[in-house]
Amino acid sequence: MGTSVDDHRRSIRALLAPLARREPVVRPLDRALGLALATDLIAPLSLPPFDNSQMDGFAVRSADFAAGHEFAAAEPIPAGAVPVPLARGQAAPIMTGAMLPEGADAVVPVERARPPRFPDAAELSDHARVVLPSVEPGTFVRRAGSDVAAGDVVLAAGARLGPAQLGLAAALGLAEVPARPPLRVAVLSTGAELAVPGEPLSPGQIYDSNGTLLVAALREAGIDARATAVRSDEPDALRAALAGAAESADLLVTTGGVSKGAFEATKLALAGADVEFVHLALQPGGPQGIGTVGGVPFLGFPGNPVSCWVSWEILLRPVLAELLGAPAPRPRLRLPLADPLDSPSRKLQVRRARLLTDGRVSLVGGPGSHLLGALAASDALVLVPEDVTELPVGASVEVWLL
Amino acid sequence: MGTSVDDHRRSIRALLAPLARREPVVRPLDRALGLALATDLIAPLSLPPFDNSQMDGFAVRSADFAAGHEFAAAEPIPAGAVPVPLARGQAAPIMTGAMLPEGADAVVPVERARPPRFPDAAELSDHARVVLPSVEPGTFVRRAGSDVAAGDVVLAAGARLGPAQLGLAAALGLAEVPARPPLRVAVLSTGAELAVPGEPLSPGQIYDSNGTLLVAALREAGIDARATAVRSDEPDALRAALAGAAESADLLVTTGGVSKGAFEATKLALAGADVEFVHLALQPGGPQGIGTVGGVPFLGFPGNPVSCWVSWEILLRPVLAELLGAPAPRPRLRLPLADPLDSPSRKLQVRRARLLTDGRVSLVGGPGSHLLGALAASDALVLVPEDVTELPVGASVEVWLL
Repeated sequence: MGTSVDDHRRSIRALLAPLARREPVVRPLDRALGLALATDLIAPLSLPPFDNSQMDGFAVRSADFAAGHEFAAAEPIPAGAVPVPLARGQAAPIMTGAMLPEGADAVVPVERARPPRFPDAAELSDHARVVLPSVEPGTFVRRAGSDVAAGDVVLAAGARLGPAQLGLAAALGLAEVPARPPLRVAVLSTGAELAVPGEPLSPGQIYDSNGTLLVAALREAGIDARATAVRSDEPDALRAALAGAAESADLLVTTGGVSKGAFEATKLALAGADVEFVHLALQPGGPQGIGTVGGVPFLGFPGNPVSCWVSWEILLRPVLAELLGAPAPRPRLRLPLADPLDSPSRKLQVRRARLLTDGRVSLVGGPGSHLLGALAASDALVLVPEDVTELPVGASVEVWLL
Repeated sequence: MGTSVDDHRRSIRALLAPLARREPVVRPLDRALGLALATDLIAPLSLPPFDNSQMDGFAVRSADFAAGHEFAAAEPIPAGAVPVPLARGQAAPIMTGAMLPEGADAVVPVERARPPRFPDAAELSDHARVVLPSVEPGTFVRRAGSDVAAGDVVLAAGARLGPAQLGLAAALGLAEVPARPPLRVAVLSTGAELAVPGEPLSPGQIYDSNGTLLVAALREAGIDARATAVRSDEPDALRAALAGAAESADLLVTTGGVSKGAFEATKLALAGADVEFVHLALQPGGPQGIGTVGGVPFLGFPGNPVSCWVSWEILLRPVLAELLGAPAPRPRLRLPLADPLDSPSRKLQVRRARLLTDGRVSLVGGPGSHLLGALAASDALVLVPEDVTELPVGASVEVWLL
């Protein structure tokens, strides 16, 4: 009853495996967002690089409290300065992030001092004194290496470089990182029925939305995607477009023409090629093509907008996330249904849905693969396993967040 | 005990409210990803635009079954064609998405026909006949307007234009959309202790990571963000940098210099300006500045990397999502804790966390605001309300997914 989704993902993974071995690119941090790290990132220094104060306060030697609570105010220590060592009986005004002076092992927040403020310049030159409550060693001190130790693998090869990962690289003093190059994907929407948005619609035609939909989805995932519309069912037209696209793409994706009809343009155009057409146990998104065209990996997605988008989300995106590290996989959780549902037996059904504020998930629109308006109102997918044919309100389902 | 987070968000909202009234820009669909729609989008046509077939099959008039199950095969109808009306007793081979011929009201999938295939050209010219099982009117027909009706508001002003929304606009024949212009944000990281990644680190210095972190976070959210590092505590240096940035920014954000220390560069530089410095009931992210500089909205975030990033996620991002429609708000849910936690009383504590595959959420690192390595290992935030000081394993907490 159709190839399983897992099996087809494995086929896609095998097809795309060589893409994981492309030559890394070295990118400055501000041009690496959304790419995957090409090699393990090893910390060249510790974070924090030195013991520093967690508070605006007074740096003290905790053992000095044995001799009393009144301290001589030392020179203030701003962040960025290299402080002079702390003498016995001294308390040094220290700012958040500033290096702890040699001899100090704790910080008393300024608001707990008497007086509860920093001495001004005149007071300092007049040998100001300050009374402090006792503290344990280590209080309000951020120890060198307490976040990251020099030599640690802080990010593994394949980690997606989001804001936090790039911020971490900067904190480690790195100006650039080795990254896997962004994937170049050519999206070819096919069909004699396609009209160009902005131009008049003839009877029987529909506007081409798959190119816009899929390219936007790929770009949002950090992929270098370009759309071409092949508004013809002539095999030669699609073959020529594919040959042109293959020159500068890592992956070719068509939409449409892979089903069981009498005029399946993509099937006809690739009849002699290294491409297999299969029917997956998946609704929507059942008809699929997979192979190579001109030596370039090829995927043939179905032509209904929701089918083609589900093919990306359920088949291609998870493989890229696992194989290349980018894009990020969709967060997956289990939530209770707010609506009952029916699902065909022996097919993985993928429904569009919305998270409710009460923690349940509500279906948007029906299972139909043409319901683009409903898709635009969704923020989640509900996956109904192959062996499930109906679920009541309250049933726990697998949810992927968009 | 500090300004509440809700109150400060209201202040930010009031400060930024004029940004919602900027002149819309008209963008082609392929340059609108991630922007917010400027006006309601009204469907100029219905989707589907016409009754069409959901299957590869035979279009029939269901009433004809009263006269028998054998039909004369009519001319095939490919997608994109305008079919001739269906005569009594005829069944027209019809492809998925093709327009239903006048007179037809149902489709029988080809695999249920006898023979279970489409007649070829020779059979058609030889008056091929086909035997079909009865169907109810409407079977496997996608009615015109069943997804979207012409005249419907399909997307409200402020809707974020993601892939599905842009795909919907394309399906409706729109080549461009009115969008709110992307926000231009200047990020100025401040502090004499800052070193430039890629250059040597002097003792007491740290590498500037806030610029990279915050600009990447803003860009990922579709904001046009630029970083400047002001590696000085001289008030004039920051004032000059702010004046320069104010010329081409909708919002100025500094990091650092807003706390209670003796050398708070941002506070000193803006002592005479229309800027208020407050302390929020928030950990991390307590010290904050808000106001205008040179007539441009100004936010002063604290200088620790996690504090400055939390300020963006907890304070600024939700306000932009609500006020402008982009970026998208973070998905929020309630999940059980996998670890116990402590939280200061009267402060909203924001902890970094990871979703576990068992549906629980696990804390990453401690509450410290310098733990950038831990942040880079997180995919969620846990928000602990002001009145909660400890929570056991299994307690349900508010989670924001990153």
